[in-house]
Amino acid sequence: MVDQFVAKGSDPSFLTIEQWARKIEEALEKPNIVGPIRNIRDGDRREFDAIFIGGGAAGRFGSAYLRALGGRQLVIDRWPFLGGSCPHNACVPHHLFSECAAELMLARAFSGTLWFPDMTGRTTSIKEVVDLFRRGRTGPHAVMNYQSKEQLDIEFVLNASARILDAHTVEAAGEVFRARALVLALGAEPVRLDAPGSELDGVHDYATLVETLDREPGDAVVVIGGGKTAVEYGCFFNATGRHVVMLVRSRLLDLIRDGDTRAYAIDRMREQGMEIIEGATASAIIGDASGHVARVVAETPAGPLQIDADFVFQALGERPRSRPAVEALGVAVDDSGAVVVDEQLRTSVADVYAVGDLIGAPMEMFKARKSGVYAARAIMGEKVSYRPSDWPDFLHTHYEVSWLGLGEEEARARFLNVVILKMPPDNPNGLAIGLPASDRTMLYAMARPHMSGFQKLVLDGDTRRVLGAHHVGYGAKDAFQYLNVLVQRGLTIDELGEMDELFLNPTHFIQLSRLRAGHRELRNL
Amino acid sequence: MVDQFVAKGSDPSFLTIEQWARKIEEALEKPNIVGPIRNIRDGDRREFDAIFIGGGAAGRFGSAYLRALGGRQLVIDRWPFLGGSCPHNACVPHHLFSECAAELMLARAFSGTLWFPDMTGRTTSIKEVVDLFRRGRTGPHAVMNYQSKEQLDIEFVLNASARILDAHTVEAAGEVFRARALVLALGAEPVRLDAPGSELDGVHDYATLVETLDREPGDAVVVIGGGKTAVEYGCFFNATGRHVVMLVRSRLLDLIRDGDTRAYAIDRMREQGMEIIEGATASAIIGDASGHVARVVAETPAGPLQIDADFVFQALGERPRSRPAVEALGVAVDDSGAVVVDEQLRTSVADVYAVGDLIGAPMEMFKARKSGVYAARAIMGEKVSYRPSDWPDFLHTHYEVSWLGLGEEEARARFLNVVILKMPPDNPNGLAIGLPASDRTMLYAMARPHMSGFQKLVLDGDTRRVLGAHHVGYGAKDAFQYLNVLVQRGLTIDELGEMDELFLNPTHFIQLSRLRAGHRELRNL
Repeated sequence: MVDQFVAKGSDPSFLTIEQWARKIEEALEKPNIVGPIRNIRDGDRREFDAIFIGGGAAGRFGSAYLRALGGRQLVIDRWPFLGGSCPHNACVPHHLFSECAAELMLARAFSGTLWFPDMTGRTTSIKEVVDLFRRGRTGPHAVMNYQSKEQLDIEFVLNASARILDAHTVEAAGEVFRARALVLALGAEPVRLDAPGSELDGVHDYATLVETLDREPGDAVVVIGGGKTAVEYGCFFNATGRHVVMLVRSRLLDLIRDGDTRAYAIDRMREQGMEIIEGATASAIIGDASGHVARVVAETPAGPLQIDADFVFQALGERPRSRPAVEALGVAVDDSGAVVVDEQLRTSVADVYAVGDLIGAPMEMFKARKSGVYAARAIMGEKVSYRPSDWPDFLHTHYEVSWLGLGEEEARARFLNVVILKMPPDNPNGLAIGLPASDRTMLYAMARPHMSGFQKLVLDGDTRRVLGAHHVGYGAKDAFQYLNVLVQRGLTIDELGEMDELFLNPTHFIQLSRLRAGHRELRNL
Repeated sequence: MVDQFVAKGSDPSFLTIEQWARKIEEALEKPNIVGPIRNIRDGDRREFDAIFIGGGAAGRFGSAYLRALGGRQLVIDRWPFLGGSCPHNACVPHHLFSECAAELMLARAFSGTLWFPDMTGRTTSIKEVVDLFRRGRTGPHAVMNYQSKEQLDIEFVLNASARILDAHTVEAAGEVFRARALVLALGAEPVRLDAPGSELDGVHDYATLVETLDREPGDAVVVIGGGKTAVEYGCFFNATGRHVVMLVRSRLLDLIRDGDTRAYAIDRMREQGMEIIEGATASAIIGDASGHVARVVAETPAGPLQIDADFVFQALGERPRSRPAVEALGVAVDDSGAVVVDEQLRTSVADVYAVGDLIGAPMEMFKARKSGVYAARAIMGEKVSYRPSDWPDFLHTHYEVSWLGLGEEEARARFLNVVILKMPPDNPNGLAIGLPASDRTMLYAMARPHMSGFQKLVLDGDTRRVLGAHHVGYGAKDAFQYLNVLVQRGLTIDELGEMDELFLNPTHFIQLSRLRAGHRELRNL
């Protein structure tokens, strides 16, 4: 396994993953001293087929695919690493915090028993986890740089701003680069609260949290927002032992498509002590003498409210970072600021493409990466068409919540003969029973059964096809990726019942289907 | 949700899940006083289509399916619950212990940091977890009885032995029942070590562990065996802080089909301090004056060995419990004691079927349940054919290990152009990098990167099809059920790259595929 690296070792630009990590850390600390990180095959006289402006998920995957197709690309990013915000301040820290939330909920549920510490009244550090992330995040960054250079043969200029000169020309690190096409992959940034005080110290969003948190938050946290990010971070803060108040403009977790599933998830959040106020708006954030947040003023259905808190987390969604492209090229954008593209990812300007969060919802990883790939394919002359549809989805509370297809309510609105298989089943004891149970819900199933999860399969009794699947628990998120493909291909209860389950499977759908598939007229379970 | 239970409430035999739990506990404690638990529609004059002898996974699922097809069945079990050994002493406790192993490894890795207790030199209780299981297991039992009676309309006699009179007649609880067919679903039982001392107190298998453990094991544990059960329990004992010596007759975890994957799993076991001796046989177990195990004598490649231990766990496989059926009916069995069946699950005796572990390998849940279902379908006149093949598989170390299809070595032996995508990639720093990362490996990825898992996709570069997939980590086991179906249908790297990942997906296969799918000539990653 060592031999293959010898040839690379003679390349003066070769860095091991460990060396990349050190270089990235240095560049993050002193960007100007390290200067641009340049990987360009100067001997290659071919024109670039595309320049990707932004090396996040969209730009990096688009670059890799274009390169694999035999094209030549350049990707430019202001950060000293490829991969973008996800590993730096978005999905990766979110997953770390959500893991902590899951572990802390377990520790609190079993406080003082087995090997678990006594968690009574105990507040654990948010800052230690943030610091752990700050120290650890260069690892994934380094892997992505290594992989991009050594394995994917991507050409890049990192740690450098790109200035768009025209639809074929970009300036970066003092050089001018030309290409047949530009691909805008500028991403999005958090929408900031439009209320006095939103600039105070101690008011964070997911991006600032991991960059600037320099003191331990106090006992109360206000979270403004009711979608994925608000809930994921809110549950983490709650799990550390803080009192969390969620101010939700409309309806908490409205995106969970099944009513029972949403209710299960929210009930568990409340049970963990989270205070959720729907129909609430933060009207002002008040600071103390030092300019640090001291309290939040909110309008709620029950009247005005003041909440003392030295830590506020806002998660009001993302706005595409389209302004530089509008100013430089005049690309058309919609009301949300998203760059308008067709199914070939072409903007309103000839030879200019846009991908990733910059083109708006869904701002999900699969869309970022796939839109980058499809732009690359279009630029290389393939006839392609991309429009995201019917994707599975997930979020974290203290649990993983995963879903695909229709919720029960939507299904009933569209189909006459909806059949439901679920666990726990409807029964007079409700949730107080030890199933479902699976990896990472076993301790709950044995001793706190109502915490062991909820799951539901929605079927059309006439065609016997799966219309939707919904899961709260652990270890099923990954499955929904593949299950979704099968559902799109017309998966039936009979086909599910034919599969080979890996017992105790987190999704009990295979065995529940098998118990009912014998019926010509399907019945609920 | 309450209304639907009113009608049931007027049925004198109706029990809530909670009432079932109490009844089952009482019956387990005083089987003779509680007596047979009978659910038979005496008003139904129809002959039984089948009597299932044994109400484990095979008998219960077969019963449910036969009933769903409109047939009439009876299932008889010696235990006061349906569901068999799995929830009573097999898969369910194994999953609980494996969850504890995962949680304890995490707690030890982060000992004394964040909220984790100082685990240095600390031994945690095995007995407390066993006791937790004993208290909790009636929950799942109760759900299965409730579901079987109220939702699946299964007729049963529980807490009663069945005596086979002939191929159509069984006696149980003082009554004689006749049916068109018998379905033998008698299960299997642990093979006991054939060496002096194997009957001593403190020598356990998975079944006795949860029934008879009455004192806390000491600091050293000897595990005899090297397959799934040996490893799953051995890792749990290790995670509690005990010194575990595994005496493995041939090769540890030989069933993991990919070499790198097996090596990663075993390396982590050794790193946790497990002592693994391959080519070793336990030749005697020596007791103390009170008849409790005191040490194990083993023959090893390095010579004879004596290990002081007051706790021995043997996991030497399972033997079909076929003797009663052989004696009563003369059904043919093979060398392993398995009842021989054809693809309609028919034994050598007319109208007698056999299902589940009784028919031999693979002794897995899916085969138990599906063989029960196929027997039911055959009895009800459907033309069916069942022979398990190409199933996915998994086991637990301190991790989940999942696999499907071919390992790299097998693939290279059969295909000329094998392409590998893996994470971590081959690189000069090996595992010391922060990827893969996902739910429940985030803390490792940030601070103990080499513990964050391993995964590999094996492809045929010519057809671009997936040949195998292998994963060590968490949260991917469920996915392998569905991924396996897609692989069986010819899944290609291009189709994988088209899927919508739920990032950070435990299996990184979708995105790794997408990075390479652009190449006409596929390359490793």
